[in-house]
Amino acid sequence: MEEEFIQHHISQQFNKELVELRNQVLSMGGLVEEQLKNAIIALSTHNYQLARQVYSDDYKVNALEVRIDEESTRILAIRQPTARDLRLVMAVIKTIPDLERIGDQAESIAQMALQIQGEAESKYFVAIRHLGEHVQYMLHNALDAFARIDVEMALRVMDEDRKVDQECDSISRQLITYMIAEPRTIPIVLNILWSARALERVAAHSRNICEYLIYFVKGKDVRHISSVEQVEEEGRKSGD
Amino acid sequence: MEEEFIQHHISQQFNKELVELRNQVLSMGGLVEEQLKNAIIALSTHNYQLARQVYSDDYKVNALEVRIDEESTRILAIRQPTARDLRLVMAVIKTIPDLERIGDQAESIAQMALQIQGEAESKYFVAIRHLGEHVQYMLHNALDAFARIDVEMALRVMDEDRKVDQECDSISRQLITYMIAEPRTIPIVLNILWSARALERVAAHSRNICEYLIYFVKGKDVRHISSVEQVEEEGRKSGD
Repeated sequence: MEEEFIQHHISQQFNKELVELRNQVLSMGGLVEEQLKNAIIALSTHNYQLARQVYSDDYKVNALEVRIDEESTRILAIRQPTARDLRLVMAVIKTIPDLERIGDQAESIAQMALQIQGEAESKYFVAIRHLGEHVQYMLHNALDAFARIDVEMALRVMDEDRKVDQECDSISRQLITYMIAEPRTIPIVLNILWSARALERVAAHSRNICEYLIYFVKGKDVRHISSVEQVEEEGRKSGD
Repeated sequence: MEEEFIQHHISQQFNKELVELRNQVLSMGGLVEEQLKNAIIALSTHNYQLARQVYSDDYKVNALEVRIDEESTRILAIRQPTARDLRLVMAVIKTIPDLERIGDQAESIAQMALQIQGEAESKYFVAIRHLGEHVQYMLHNALDAFARIDVEMALRVMDEDRKVDQECDSISRQLITYMIAEPRTIPIVLNILWSARALERVAAHSRNICEYLIYFVKGKDVRHISSVEQVEEEGRKSGD
């Protein structure tokens, strides 16, 4: 898919820089994906070593964020890109804070895993494990859409966000009934409730990444427009 | 303080564009400040009309976000800024998503206000009202630091973030004891707990805005460095 970036530049060096920029974003994406996966396993299997691993990977994510940011700024200053190249750099600049915050949410979940300390009954974790898988899949597809410049996939990820919200609401209601029934479990169940919220935030960040990708490809800002309207518009266009 | 932007440009038009860009960010900041103020009043006084007002102001914030984003991209393409001008545009591009998310948090708090529906005892709101004032003050100072290009003030705001986190932890512990003592209040108290978390997020976004400002002025990325280290470094420099 590199052709998408490189076919239209005379400067071979500039081509390399843009491909390298994209690859760095994908590396950062891979790191936060790993953090999220470890955090969810740590939560549902009480694996404290893995929870601590999520924390210790934080510096790698932060270092990559700063490096990508500096490289983007350098490209803007030196290459003075316009049109599609400029939109690519803008999309990268917007994507990396969302990736960094996904890493932060993974750390929150790892923190919850450490606080629960094996005291919780397994029934609390069934629903959140499923939510975790759903959100991981969404993040994976968002990064895949970015890697392949795949607008169709990005639109599908944006639609998943609503389902994750509904799933999270349903888990919250269930956990609240547990708390009312057994008040002594409140501190533990709250940690699971926070983790569900953190996963909901990861889904929202994944959605944002897809919006930036569509902006890059279409040159159009799709934030604050529902993805249904988006799909309808796509449909109208292909019917023209 | 406009001199900070305009003194070094030959093109009067470019000067105007940068000043206008800054003013738009401040307008957006003013809007989300108003949303946050209304959301906190709505929560602690059960003012549902005000809660709905927070929602209806959302489109203004979103419209400004898209406009500022487009204007920033246009300036990058047409003016091809470098050095300090480029850092200014980068700081603006990074600041506006944080402002937009502060607006989102205000909406979450307004939603909690609508869900509580006057059922809650006033004791639940004492601590959160104080936290709300603290966070509003922090956001106000972050915007003020941006308006005046005041690095000292930005560093002070960054230090407040830690205090807000501590205050939020203490409120959480207090609310959990209420829930354990009176399980029937769990759904209501949870709404207040979510609101406290939303305020904590607003404080974190205010901190981010200050970090971008310091990057603009100093040309240095201060994310992932504690503000204490920052102050120490400032101290060392002025002692040189």
